[in-house]
Amino acid sequence: MNTFGTLFRLTTFGESHGPALGGVVDGMPAGIEVDTDYVQQQLDRRRPGQSRLTTARAEADRVEFLSGIFEGRTTGCPIGFIIRNTNAHSSDYEEMRLAYRPSHADFTYQRKYGIRDYRGGGRSSARETACRVVAGALAQLALRQVGIRVAAYVSQVGDIRLDGTYKDYNLADAELNEVRCPEAATAARMADLILKVKGEGDTVGGIVSCVATGCPVGLGEPIFGKLQASLAAAMMSINAAKGFDYGAGFEGLTQRGSEQNDLFVPDGQGGITTQTNRSGGIQGGISNGQDIYFRVAFKPVATLLREQATVGTDGQATTLRARGRHDACVLPRAVPVVEAMAAIVLLDALLLSKTTRI
Amino acid sequence: MNTFGTLFRLTTFGESHGPALGGVVDGMPAGIEVDTDYVQQQLDRRRPGQSRLTTARAEADRVEFLSGIFEGRTTGCPIGFIIRNTNAHSSDYEEMRLAYRPSHADFTYQRKYGIRDYRGGGRSSARETACRVVAGALAQLALRQVGIRVAAYVSQVGDIRLDGTYKDYNLADAELNEVRCPEAATAARMADLILKVKGEGDTVGGIVSCVATGCPVGLGEPIFGKLQASLAAAMMSINAAKGFDYGAGFEGLTQRGSEQNDLFVPDGQGGITTQTNRSGGIQGGISNGQDIYFRVAFKPVATLLREQATVGTDGQATTLRARGRHDACVLPRAVPVVEAMAAIVLLDALLLSKTTRI
Amino acid sequence: MNTFGTLFRLTTFGESHGPALGGVVDGMPAGIEVDTDYVQQQLDRRRPGQSRLTTARAEADRVEFLSGIFEGRTTGCPIGFIIRNTNAHSSDYEEMRLAYRPSHADFTYQRKYGIRDYRGGGRSSARETACRVVAGALAQLALRQVGIRVAAYVSQVGDIRLDGTYKDYNLADAELNEVRCPEAATAARMADLILKVKGEGDTVGGIVSCVATGCPVGLGEPIFGKLQASLAAAMMSINAAKGFDYGAGFEGLTQRGSEQNDLFVPDGQGGITTQTNRSGGIQGGISNGQDIYFRVAFKPVATLLREQATVGTDGQATTLRARGRHDACVLPRAVPVVEAMAAIVLLDALLLSKTTRI
Amino acid sequence: MNTFGTLFRLTTFGESHGPALGGVVDGMPAGIEVDTDYVQQQLDRRRPGQSRLTTARAEADRVEFLSGIFEGRTTGCPIGFIIRNTNAHSSDYEEMRLAYRPSHADFTYQRKYGIRDYRGGGRSSARETACRVVAGALAQLALRQVGIRVAAYVSQVGDIRLDGTYKDYNLADAELNEVRCPEAATAARMADLILKVKGEGDTVGGIVSCVATGCPVGLGEPIFGKLQASLAAAMMSINAAKGFDYGAGFEGLTQRGSEQNDLFVPDGQGGITTQTNRSGGIQGGISNGQDIYFRVAFKPVATLLREQATVGTDGQATTLRARGRHDACVLPRAVPVVEAMAAIVLLDALLLSKTTRI
Repeated sequence: MNTFGTLFRLTTFGESHGPALGGVVDGMPAGIEVDTDYVQQQLDRRRPGQSRLTTARAEADRVEFLSGIFEGRTTGCPIGFIIRNTNAHSSDYEEMRLAYRPSHADFTYQRKYGIRDYRGGGRSSARETACRVVAGALAQLALRQVGIRVAAYVSQVGDIRLDGTYKDYNLADAELNEVRCPEAATAARMADLILKVKGEGDTVGGIVSCVATGCPVGLGEPIFGKLQASLAAAMMSINAAKGFDYGAGFEGLTQRGSEQNDLFVPDGQGGITTQTNRSGGIQGGISNGQDIYFRVAFKPVATLLREQATVGTDGQATTLRARGRHDACVLPRAVPVVEAMAAIVLLDALLLSKTTRI
Repeated sequence: MNTFGTLFRLTTFGESHGPALGGVVDGMPAGIEVDTDYVQQQLDRRRPGQSRLTTARAEADRVEFLSGIFEGRTTGCPIGFIIRNTNAHSSDYEEMRLAYRPSHADFTYQRKYGIRDYRGGGRSSARETACRVVAGALAQLALRQVGIRVAAYVSQVGDIRLDGTYKDYNLADAELNEVRCPEAATAARMADLILKVKGEGDTVGGIVSCVATGCPVGLGEPIFGKLQASLAAAMMSINAAKGFDYGAGFEGLTQRGSEQNDLFVPDGQGGITTQTNRSGGIQGGISNGQDIYFRVAFKPVATLLREQATVGTDGQATTLRARGRHDACVLPRAVPVVEAMAAIVLLDALLLSKTTRI
Repeated sequence: MNTFGTLFRLTTFGESHGPALGGVVDGMPAGIEVDTDYVQQQLDRRRPGQSRLTTARAEADRVEFLSGIFEGRTTGCPIGFIIRNTNAHSSDYEEMRLAYRPSHADFTYQRKYGIRDYRGGGRSSARETACRVVAGALAQLALRQVGIRVAAYVSQVGDIRLDGTYKDYNLADAELNEVRCPEAATAARMADLILKVKGEGDTVGGIVSCVATGCPVGLGEPIFGKLQASLAAAMMSINAAKGFDYGAGFEGLTQRGSEQNDLFVPDGQGGITTQTNRSGGIQGGISNGQDIYFRVAFKPVATLLREQATVGTDGQATTLRARGRHDACVLPRAVPVVEAMAAIVLLDALLLSKTTRI
Repeated sequence: MNTFGTLFRLTTFGESHGPALGGVVDGMPAGIEVDTDYVQQQLDRRRPGQSRLTTARAEADRVEFLSGIFEGRTTGCPIGFIIRNTNAHSSDYEEMRLAYRPSHADFTYQRKYGIRDYRGGGRSSARETACRVVAGALAQLALRQVGIRVAAYVSQVGDIRLDGTYKDYNLADAELNEVRCPEAATAARMADLILKVKGEGDTVGGIVSCVATGCPVGLGEPIFGKLQASLAAAMMSINAAKGFDYGAGFEGLTQRGSEQNDLFVPDGQGGITTQTNRSGGIQGGISNGQDIYFRVAFKPVATLLREQATVGTDGQATTLRARGRHDACVLPRAVPVVEAMAAIVLLDALLLSKTTRI
């Protein structure tokens, strides 16, 4: 199940310490201009080693497109691409050959497949998400043609959280700091926490919030293809994601229906809008033209740079202390991944929405 | 997109006020004994009119199996089934023909399709979930053969919530009260709240928690088919679901990695287990043999028995007061639906897990 | 795998001697007027007992629509339907419980599933194709909106074959005789052959030819979704189909490229057409705007009303003489099934073709 | 639609004159030893420039595996691979930028996508089938573990055809000559014909026959997933394929049912076999344990090295004479492609067959 999507489909491959990662984007609309600088910028936002907050692995993460683009535009044919691994230190992972990292995928992969590439987590490494960022960037280039924009930001790290909603900030400000939180003061506190935790050889989790603007009415396919279901599947497929909600979500449960309902009102231009948007832009699984917003919870990274008790592949108790280069907090680098998966879902939904009538 | 699943697949059809709802279960393993009483019991748990807490619509919800079962056992062929609608009061919905209910699917369906069956919400009605319960009951009959059990319960209504985790209760007790909360005292408070809210013509939301026990190691297909991604898609496809998390989820975000990691330990019988289970039984998208548990947040029902401002299909501001028979709180009836979708996901994952090696 | 199609999807269920057959049509475009008489007429063309050439089983084959249609038009929601079995004589099949009919599916179903509904072939009965005819009729109603028409006819029975191509006949004439061959004299000879073979307790095969007119350029999704690949899958999924070819097909293999190529010429109206159409309307897997035509070979029916040697479920040699009511030649009744599957493929391709550009 | 398969899935990308072709094989069973020499040998059988009968394009067609293989064995993770294009002469195709080759995909791609990579046919080039050969070779390595073998050969070129069936030859002999026909004398006549046609700047078609041995009972998923339907889809997706039949196929249509039926007989070892195998190893869409055999018709190559009338992209009549390097007959090189697609279908069916019972 290394393919995601119905009409706009991403298939990925590659391990953390193999020769390359890569993917195939199928169903890309034809005739879209491909701004390769933009794609690389998105990759750079996810790249390891981009700041003191992230892992020191120095990967350039250069994408090489192999097909599907002709004279600068998409042809409607599949877009194959690869990203070479250039800075893999496999020797750092020798001990993971012999023991299972707690709360990591080593044990389950070994049991499911009877074999695993233990180097850097192999296929289970979050390096795989680089391919999602490439596909997401292509999706965003297409979505822009119809005015849809996706923006994510860090809204919580550990117990430090933004007080406001996405409307209270200039989301572009998130790119001004290394945490990717749009409020400078909170971002600074979050950065301090991450550095503190990192210094302790520990890790910390948090929340990425995301908003899509400019969506037309009609994205989402009831019953099982509800837009929130596709978004949830997309987000929960990201490494370390533990939770998803949209609109009023978990936090709106103390409201009554009369408090949470979004009343329809004429928009003054012959159309219909809503007074509030606690629905998060989706009603009955279909976008209603309002902003779509949701949250994704990420757990603290499982790989710790401190000793932990575990069990070896021989079934005996042992201890393990990771030596590889790891993030103490995935949140800053998860921001472009959340955006990418959101863009993939929305473009897929947009293409599907074109098939409702003949 | 009225089909869910990869190998074990449910396709549903039917509207709230049409002649019948129904579905097709494809990929059901052959040779499973079908306990039709058990299937009907599950439907009865979801049935409207089952208690003073639920809508008064008096539907028998009798399932008629049309295929795929021979001499009491499944044949591996698709199981078609229908549930006749017998107590539809379409006249109650006349005003919905002319105006859009706030936070409901009326508006989005109309715009997406250019036509809608407004009677009782048509296809967007939660009556569709009856078909899921049928398929889920069949899935549970298959899962039992390998020792997998699924149980859900109401853990929060409005601001009343259970303090403990699923391990602190006898989950079978949830069936002893009309709320389906396993602790009698909390259940009573929840019931009081629902009745109070109902009396006010208002509605209230909450959380259904669910646990699957007896799962082998190996369920879930990385990368995009992670078990939590499939569960999230399944749950978020249920009417009124607003959020999903599993394991430590949103509530574990203040923990450090060293606090949240589940250390592996020998299980004393030659196998491997974990000291804790904050992972919720899933690591790297694959079940690790521990209990799988997750939560689903449900918003307050959108249809209120009180007047709300809205817009008519003519684009003019108007007011609407629902006259149909509606739940003030979906939680008690959502319990069997959550169980059903979980069973569908787990059986699908179980079948997929058989194809990993030749 | 009881579902066919990508965007326009048919899922079927039901056995020959169960309570009902049925299906779900998903992805039907919204707003199409449903002429239920037309649908029933198509079913009547496939119905058993319609002439002296077909089985005597007297099934009315009345379709009951259960959803997806509102005030006479499709809503974009799934269309569930059932066809009750009313004339099953299960006692005729008692001997098939104990022995495997030669060249039939009894043996393979038993071994694959470990259980089978032996009555009338159960799920492997060609009665299942009634559901395809319903879906195909709905697809044709949609295709008509854009000027696409599908017509099939019998072009060969045993060694009697039409000399001309589809352009040499008025295809509507095929409905004037019980064989569904558009040339009366050939049809009469075919009918004589079928009756002669029937009298001998034997069976005979042949070819159904089919043509789709009015297709726009652009149907078909290279590489694996080539239009001819989808058509081939559709046709070869019909009971008793043994072969498929399109355009010049098997019969054009003695031509050189210079003889088979279709030269492009200006159509005199600013567009482009081809001088000939040996490509069968498809180039590179994509329709080129010319007529799409193809052939489907059907084997002689396997069930004979004469004694045949076989093996019993006990593994012992035995003999079997079918007592049920069976066709001596499926060709006349296969015509509407071929049309239906073609329409399903074409509508699916049409919907897919709308997603090529944004 | 650049993905094929349900559980064993191949996704391909790449154009004839781009930097590389490639693909992703997903669902490969874990733990299979990868004999990379074997894979390369299969590619070499498809390689251009391998004999005087084929195009002179001198591509090494070296496959580079990028993932999914660890210490020589498959890991169950997706296998990404690329094949660099090294001998593209794009200047040969300049005239194809301005005019549509008759019976080729130039016109349909241009109209469907509004843009096309005209160099060497771009995506529509049969070079794409190299990726299928890689995936097919991997599939064959897995199938061998359970004793399934696939072998194809050229049985007809133009009007020269083998008289016997696959049982009359030693199929390994097909590799002894450049035509890949197992009978030396016929092969020589076929070679002469191809060279004669080539000398005339013309092309010729023919038939590839294929047989799979060692298949267990139970491959194939009725109703729409019948084994013959999957094989037909696979074969008809190959460039230039015009027809498919299996078992007695088109040639058995003059037989009566009593002549074509395969009588079951005890196999003398407690099992069941058939006296004859006109069913081609498939009954009711499911393999019956006998040899599976089928034929694929390939048209004469459309690209001619002689002048043809056509229309330019400007809509004006013009003429075109191809200058690129092209095969006069695809049959010899189609043999490994047919084998590859058959192996892909059979492995997919084998994996699916493991999910029938719990």
